Amino acid sequence: MNIILINKEDFLSKNTVCISDSRLVHIRSVLKIQKGDSIHVGITNGSMGEAILTGRDENADFFSVNCSVPPPPPVPVTLVLALPRPKVLRRILQAIASLGIKHIILVHTFRVEKSYWQTPFLSATALREQLVSGLQQAKDTVLPEIQIEKRFRPFVEDRLPLILQNKRGYIAHPYTDSSLTICHNKASVLAIGPEGGFIPFEISLLEKAGMYSFSMGPRILKVETALSVLVSRFLPF
Amino acid sequence: MNIILINKEDFLSKNTVCISDSRLVHIRSVLKIQKGDSIHVGITNGSMGEAILTGRDENADFFSVNCSVPPPPPVPVTLVLALPRPKVLRRILQAIASLGIKHIILVHTFRVEKSYWQTPFLSATALREQLVSGLQQAKDTVLPEIQIEKRFRPFVEDRLPLILQNKRGYIAHPYTDSSLTICHNKASVLAIGPEGGFIPFEISLLEKAGMYSFSMGPRILKVETALSVLVSRFLPF
Repeated sequence: MNIILINKEDFLSKNTVCISDSRLVHIRSVLKIQKGDSIHVGITNGSMGEAILTGRDENADFFSVNCSVPPPPPVPVTLVLALPRPKVLRRILQAIASLGIKHIILVHTFRVEKSYWQTPFLSATALREQLVSGLQQAKDTVLPEIQIEKRFRPFVEDRLPLILQNKRGYIAHPYTDSSLTICHNKASVLAIGPEGGFIPFEISLLEKAGMYSFSMGPRILKVETALSVLVSRFLPF
Repeated sequence: MNIILINKEDFLSKNTVCISDSRLVHIRSVLKIQKGDSIHVGITNGSMGEAILTGRDENADFFSVNCSVPPPPPVPVTLVLALPRPKVLRRILQAIASLGIKHIILVHTFRVEKSYWQTPFLSATALREQLVSGLQQAKDTVLPEIQIEKRFRPFVEDRLPLILQNKRGYIAHPYTDSSLTICHNKASVLAIGPEGGFIPFEISLLEKAGMYSFSMGPRILKVETALSVLVSRFLPF
């Protein structure tokens, strides 16, 4: 955790914040700060800066907050991701948020097990928890938006074409020969399939919607690894 | 698991292989093959191909093996990695192997907790298990070499300069301003620090040995994410 996110509800007045939930454990037992010490904070969906510990009682710490630094620029990628296994989902959402992606579309595909959609990790609270964790890792404040699409075909036929307007669309597909040079400045839609990949019918629907499939080479990577490898091509370094 | 690795010890004759260990569980309960079916296999440090199930008894499956496809080319990166937390180490070794890195140097640094070196995951058997898992994911057969360096300074001063001969050396360092264009065709050494980064003294030793520090941008990524993001720049796609 390289920054602690604070919310509107935490403010007692314009510059005074009270923290009394699980963040307190981190502040007291990991950061171990004393009165007068400061910590890095960010206001959810707002700017970043620092907070000075001004008071402490049994159940809460009180801070004077000064935030004026804008969060880092987002990565211009809309991610279309086949719903991963619940265990992987949590870790991957953290990684997505830390990489700076701001629009995530979780889709059902033929090779996604239907039971995955029953996981409690898809509750709004659980999703937000993982995203906040990723933002706090990366020093960012802007919460990504998550869109859930349990029916592949209506999503691809009806909604994807609108999302693709003025963007390039890429499908990471291990079983194609075409390679593609990603243009990292251009707003893009990136589709990553489930373990085992998209089926040919899904690929053809995605292509009909305006996306291009390309191969990442002969190695078959786990979704988590593939995600970072692909998003790397959009990061400005 | 997209390929099953077989070893010299598994061969009964030139083309006949007997599998009776944990791989059997995967073959029988995940792949669920029957006599006459074939699976993708690779010979450790050798070529890849397929194996046809020719016989089965209570404790073993017997295959006729035909391997003639070379493994994918390695990534020309030597990785110098501050020893991660044991839990992360396992996952990261799998990712490293799947990405095609063939030389990994695990180093101690100031911010690596000394207790990490006590983990059973550093035993030769445990290390190999994770590497094999990564290779079987990626469809590769060539085991990476792991070098353990528990003393940072003698490693950097005495051995790193030799490793750097005819290679470029990069240090991923969140607290520098310089950006760097990675040249993906050129053999390179890539150093990734621990959580919290290398300390300035370590950076200066690495730079004295001939390495260049560069920033990956404003986001601070977990080691696992940073690894894939960085190695991406060396992958030929």
